[in-house]
Amino acid sequence: MYGLVMADLSATEPASDVTAPAAEMLASDQASTWLGIRLTQASPGRATVMLEIEEHHCNGLGVCHGGFLFTLADTAMAFATNAGGHRAFATNAEIDFIEAARVGDRLTATCTQIVSRGKAGVSDVTVTKQDGSTIAVFRGRTLATKPS
Amino acid sequence: MYGLVMADLSATEPASDVTAPAAEMLASDQASTWLGIRLTQASPGRATVMLEIEEHHCNGLGVCHGGFLFTLADTAMAFATNAGGHRAFATNAEIDFIEAARVGDRLTATCTQIVSRGKAGVSDVTVTKQDGSTIAVFRGRTLATKPS
Amino acid sequence: MYGLVMADLSATEPASDVTAPAAEMLASDQASTWLGIRLTQASPGRATVMLEIEEHHCNGLGVCHGGFLFTLADTAMAFATNAGGHRAFATNAEIDFIEAARVGDRLTATCTQIVSRGKAGVSDVTVTKQDGSTIAVFRGRTLATKPS
Amino acid sequence: MYGLVMADLSATEPASDVTAPAAEMLASDQASTWLGIRLTQASPGRATVMLEIEEHHCNGLGVCHGGFLFTLADTAMAFATNAGGHRAFATNAEIDFIEAARVGDRLTATCTQIVSRGKAGVSDVTVTKQDGSTIAVFRGRTLATKPS
Repeated sequence: MYGLVMADLSATEPASDVTAPAAEMLASDQASTWLGIRLTQASPGRATVMLEIEEHHCNGLGVCHGGFLFTLADTAMAFATNAGGHRAFATNAEIDFIEAARVGDRLTATCTQIVSRGKAGVSDVTVTKQDGSTIAVFRGRTLATKPS
Repeated sequence: MYGLVMADLSATEPASDVTAPAAEMLASDQASTWLGIRLTQASPGRATVMLEIEEHHCNGLGVCHGGFLFTLADTAMAFATNAGGHRAFATNAEIDFIEAARVGDRLTATCTQIVSRGKAGVSDVTVTKQDGSTIAVFRGRTLATKPS
Repeated sequence: MYGLVMADLSATEPASDVTAPAAEMLASDQASTWLGIRLTQASPGRATVMLEIEEHHCNGLGVCHGGFLFTLADTAMAFATNAGGHRAFATNAEIDFIEAARVGDRLTATCTQIVSRGKAGVSDVTVTKQDGSTIAVFRGRTLATKPS
Repeated sequence: MYGLVMADLSATEPASDVTAPAAEMLASDQASTWLGIRLTQASPGRATVMLEIEEHHCNGLGVCHGGFLFTLADTAMAFATNAGGHRAFATNAEIDFIEAARVGDRLTATCTQIVSRGKAGVSDVTVTKQDGSTIAVFRGRTLATKPS
């Protein structure tokens, strides 16, 4: 079963690592759940999500589809920018693919909002794998419905 | 069943619209298949793929996850840049999200390589929905393993 | 003398190729003038500017500084998105450097706004040299102070 | 007088803050000199440059031309990626314009290479003004002629 669930890491990561708005958003996010993304931390301006690469994530070149790496990073940004309770949506983002991810790799995407001005924000996400090496770097822009 | 299959559009779009290398790539691409992407055209420097938005493509805001729009566009670029027989992979790409896509929307992503220099290429993808309106624009960079 | 002046191309390009708001903007644009940019066409959503590369445009690698190629493209976007009379400013842009430009090269940057939604727009600029080859491609986002 | 000169900050910033390859590059960089950029630090993967905004840097909206903000950031990246002695050139870069800079503002652009893989690198530049506020953020890609 795929599922974006709050990771069962109760010993080290208490539920309080995810704000109430992020938990609500998680409950209604079918796409990230379906892809297999887990949320481990979300607070205003910061979030961490994880994905273990499976066969169905891989493309014709035998590595994780770049689109799913982007989806993982974009999901981290969505939680970071919505964790405070204001709705924010992405307007633009780009990704640099540094190293390929393969079946069995456990990826972590950590987002930090680096700039905020009025309703607009810029966020950086780094995607790493289990050995700490960088798989991708992502920068995205969001617009909040109200100033945060 | 999800599936990236050559669209059954035999009356209007003969199999010759997809080159042999693209057809081979299609056969081994589990990710795009799993997402539900269909390939309708692929020739060197040009490709068109389609996706009908379903519930499991939607995020916590009730619209298609931006990551899947990116995945659709990135897939179009992969077919356009691999259709000639050389392996090419994406190094970087960005996307502008123009309008939300919702359940039932039928999206088309059309890629055109706009610049090629040695092994490097820049490709543009436009994602539209059934009424022709633009959902997203994407620009990506690829690197071929041999000059094309 | 450097100068962003309406190019003296009266035979082929009448003054009517530049809207009144663009002409006003031109008159107050010291930066583009100082760099040596000439405006040859500006209408809502489209503009063309030119620059002949001189010694002082060149960097430590002996070619035109990439920053000035960006400036040329950004100027084209400024005229295209302000030619209709609404003030618009760039929020983000990227450029791909395709080929080096050298002293004596005559560059042309042509901007086309490809997407407009409310106050937000996306514009593409292509920079070519005298033989028609592509020097750079640019994509930028603008925000108008009022919907256009 | 414009001039990209090693800033006369001898008390706090000794000449050893600029590597020999960076100093050589500086000596031949007419473009950055002409714009008024000063180099204060350059070592492999890191560089800092400065620019004080003057009238001729300003555009038709009365603020520093975005192209010159880009040029400042791009110059920081050039010094950071060439300071080790290998020639590297930018292939692509993007910039987010956060806040306007005006005449008299003293801008500092600091570059850090965040990813390096073979000949390819990704670098981030932050442009701030005298009060520490962020004017722009920039991310660029470079390619070295030999692996660094």
